[in-house]
Amino acid sequence: MTEEGRAKAYASLQAHGIEGLVLIGGDGTFRGANIFFKQYNIPAVGLPGTIDKDLSGTDFTIGFDTAVNTAVEAIDKIRDTAEAHDRIFVVEVMGRDAGYIALNSGIACGAEDILIPEIETDIEALLEQIARDERRKKNVHIIVVAEGDDFGGAIDVSNKIMERFQHLTVRASVLGHIQRGGAPSYADRVLASRLGYAAVTALIEGKTQVMAGIVHDEVVYTPFEQVIKGTTPISRDMQEMIKVLAS
Amino acid sequence: MTEEGRAKAYASLQAHGIEGLVLIGGDGTFRGANIFFKQYNIPAVGLPGTIDKDLSGTDFTIGFDTAVNTAVEAIDKIRDTAEAHDRIFVVEVMGRDAGYIALNSGIACGAEDILIPEIETDIEALLEQIARDERRKKNVHIIVVAEGDDFGGAIDVSNKIMERFQHLTVRASVLGHIQRGGAPSYADRVLASRLGYAAVTALIEGKTQVMAGIVHDEVVYTPFEQVIKGTTPISRDMQEMIKVLAS
Amino acid sequence: MTEEGRAKAYASLQAHGIEGLVLIGGDGTFRGANIFFKQYNIPAVGLPGTIDKDLSGTDFTIGFDTAVNTAVEAIDKIRDTAEAHDRIFVVEVMGRDAGYIALNSGIACGAEDILIPEIETDIEALLEQIARDERRKKNVHIIVVAEGDDFGGAIDVSNKIMERFQHLTVRASVLGHIQRGGAPSYADRVLASRLGYAAVTALIEGKTQVMAGIVHDEVVYTPFEQVIKGTTPISRDMQEMIKVLAS
Amino acid sequence: MTEEGRAKAYASLQAHGIEGLVLIGGDGTFRGANIFFKQYNIPAVGLPGTIDKDLSGTDFTIGFDTAVNTAVEAIDKIRDTAEAHDRIFVVEVMGRDAGYIALNSGIACGAEDILIPEIETDIEALLEQIARDERRKKNVHIIVVAEGDDFGGAIDVSNKIMERFQHLTVRASVLGHIQRGGAPSYADRVLASRLGYAAVTALIEGKTQVMAGIVHDEVVYTPFEQVIKGTTPISRDMQEMIKVLAS
Repeated sequence: MTEEGRAKAYASLQAHGIEGLVLIGGDGTFRGANIFFKQYNIPAVGLPGTIDKDLSGTDFTIGFDTAVNTAVEAIDKIRDTAEAHDRIFVVEVMGRDAGYIALNSGIACGAEDILIPEIETDIEALLEQIARDERRKKNVHIIVVAEGDDFGGAIDVSNKIMERFQHLTVRASVLGHIQRGGAPSYADRVLASRLGYAAVTALIEGKTQVMAGIVHDEVVYTPFEQVIKGTTPISRDMQEMIKVLAS
Repeated sequence: MTEEGRAKAYASLQAHGIEGLVLIGGDGTFRGANIFFKQYNIPAVGLPGTIDKDLSGTDFTIGFDTAVNTAVEAIDKIRDTAEAHDRIFVVEVMGRDAGYIALNSGIACGAEDILIPEIETDIEALLEQIARDERRKKNVHIIVVAEGDDFGGAIDVSNKIMERFQHLTVRASVLGHIQRGGAPSYADRVLASRLGYAAVTALIEGKTQVMAGIVHDEVVYTPFEQVIKGTTPISRDMQEMIKVLAS
Repeated sequence: MTEEGRAKAYASLQAHGIEGLVLIGGDGTFRGANIFFKQYNIPAVGLPGTIDKDLSGTDFTIGFDTAVNTAVEAIDKIRDTAEAHDRIFVVEVMGRDAGYIALNSGIACGAEDILIPEIETDIEALLEQIARDERRKKNVHIIVVAEGDDFGGAIDVSNKIMERFQHLTVRASVLGHIQRGGAPSYADRVLASRLGYAAVTALIEGKTQVMAGIVHDEVVYTPFEQVIKGTTPISRDMQEMIKVLAS
Repeated sequence: MTEEGRAKAYASLQAHGIEGLVLIGGDGTFRGANIFFKQYNIPAVGLPGTIDKDLSGTDFTIGFDTAVNTAVEAIDKIRDTAEAHDRIFVVEVMGRDAGYIALNSGIACGAEDILIPEIETDIEALLEQIARDERRKKNVHIIVVAEGDDFGGAIDVSNKIMERFQHLTVRASVLGHIQRGGAPSYADRVLASRLGYAAVTALIEGKTQVMAGIVHDEVVYTPFEQVIKGTTPISRDMQEMIKVLAS
């Protein structure tokens, strides 16, 4: 970060005979380190490593698939309880700026509602749906909410529901850091293997200051400056599905 | 619960030609229903169904093994994160009056501290241990706490740590209802099969108002009145192990 | 299949008031049923349901992701044993005509060799590699083979190795039907939800005799006649990776 | 094994300053090593480590619980396939001399038949049951067989069934070495922790040439000479359950 720190880091690379770097992270990681790479002319290739899947230049990011599967397993278990006890559960999954984990785990688990930062939350519509469900005796209701949703997290949503429906049992569950651990799924392992191979190939071929990504099943390289967070649009059909679920 | 309710329930059993009942639950379930069984002379056998494993008359209760395995899988995932980021995690598992889930999941995951209702929590000793660990640069610290611990839950414990060590990153995680769902472990399935078989056998043989349990790998029957919650002592060696872990 | 059978099937649809069909399967399913749909003018949309992922008109098929994750979990467990005992394991995964499951599970598990129908198996090269590994004291060797590989299945490969290296312990393991069961992964559930939604939308819009698929994250419809098996090429970088692993 | 080998092993222990040993294995391991321990007067404590659970002096052996859970997960997946296709599956699980894995995984999965070494297999009765099932249109049939069953393994059983019922689809599945790997269950981890703690305690207290085991939830020590394989009887109620399942 500081001039002095960069000098020290470079000396350390020299001392260990390191000629190139592969770094894993998001847009911030790449841009932050890039000052250093440029100043000392160090070959460097980046890999998209974020569970949020919100980077340009790649269809997938390392960790996303595993995180969603972990969330799905947890929500499945919560549904078992919900069905045994007729309850409303609000489950918060990771995603500070992006709703991909919420969107995919919610659709996978047949959530009644999915609240994500990319779509403005209409809390009144949600409350009306609960009222409607109650009238037709359907009291199992799973709401999946991204931690960065504009209305708030699981606690905020469940408080709002309890305020309106004081006789209903509402539980908030924040899945938290379990989403960052566990044995990686095959898709994440294959992705990491392909991108790792692509990074080494790139360094050998003299490519530098680029992120390796997979777009339409082929490797592509994007300059660090052009890797931007949060621009991946949600597919049109998935946007429609959210609306259909919530009606 | 009421005289009228019991009459209605009995009429319903008569209408469906039901001659005996098998009920799954804890001491409260058995005692509550027993008034009804006695009044109407209904043969009934109980199965110990509580994830807390705190019933007399049986070495295991249906659901406990699955719940602990679920907690262990979650804590393993949290440890992955803790190790990547040098953090203190306080994980709350189920157990309002009993610490068996905390004790077993904590030992299974190599938790640095395990806080359970059966042993008075010495929070000062825990804080001193964290200070000691910090001096020797060991900053990964997993604390497993039963929801019914005398000091409080995960939020209380993490608040106390953060108050003392303001520079450390401390995360609280409440596992919650995922512990009540999921595919049952073999041990729970075999237990449920054995006890279900024992219940039917008992009813055929005319036994009634008893809970079927497994003690030392054999089926035993305990009268409902004698099924008591929370009397199973923690094995001496496991008590010692908690102390060794925390030092 | 017969004229009479089709007439009966049509009568049955009429009797139940069924106005359109959604069918899940492979190219054979679609083509076989198409005679019937055309004859009786029945609106029908197909979904790609094969664990082999070898259909044109879609990037993914329902079941593939789950099957590969199941294979990976099994191979991970086998590797635990191999590492404890210094052994060669030949693991056969599904894939009669296509090597996608073998390719992806093999790369995900760091298999030393991957044998697939799409690439001619050079058994001599494999035997030489084992000899080389043995000289440098590396005796853990996992070979993943697709059931439809041109050289043969796991039994054939392990027999060949044992014939050459009579002092080595070689085990063949045929994963078999576990690959067709289990809780589906999030990716398979989301895929099935998206395609199911696309099928219903298509029927409403009057599209018929087409398979709904996902290509580059968007829904596309391919006429049944054009859905062809086994034409998806293996990405260039993955072909190279197989060679690198085996050297 | 040889006089010379033992001398070398002792020198190695001396060189590393090792004063006592903890070994994990079965009765053969303990007895084999005991010659060495006695000759050189080396303190040694054994832990029961066999997935077969057939050692005296302990209610559980390390690895058994995990192995059965792994078998159950696999058989569950096979049942998914069997139910989709109306098939007979013969699944072979580990257990050369003992049927505990087959017995427990079979009951846990609701197997129609369980074949174990401890009970003589009546293959004619099994074939008659299949004929009976076929008459009442029940064609899903899971048979769990221990590898050491007196009639033979999965291949033998499935061949016998196909010989008699040539129109039925019968599949044999040998689970094999997946049963020896994977993340250990909580019960195995706690068992290993308790026994490890007991072994260290024993060495400190001067106990030697004993195996530490858990009997009725308390630690017990059994001299190596008295640790005998294959004497644990199958509980009476589980024997009866096998018969009930198969009728």
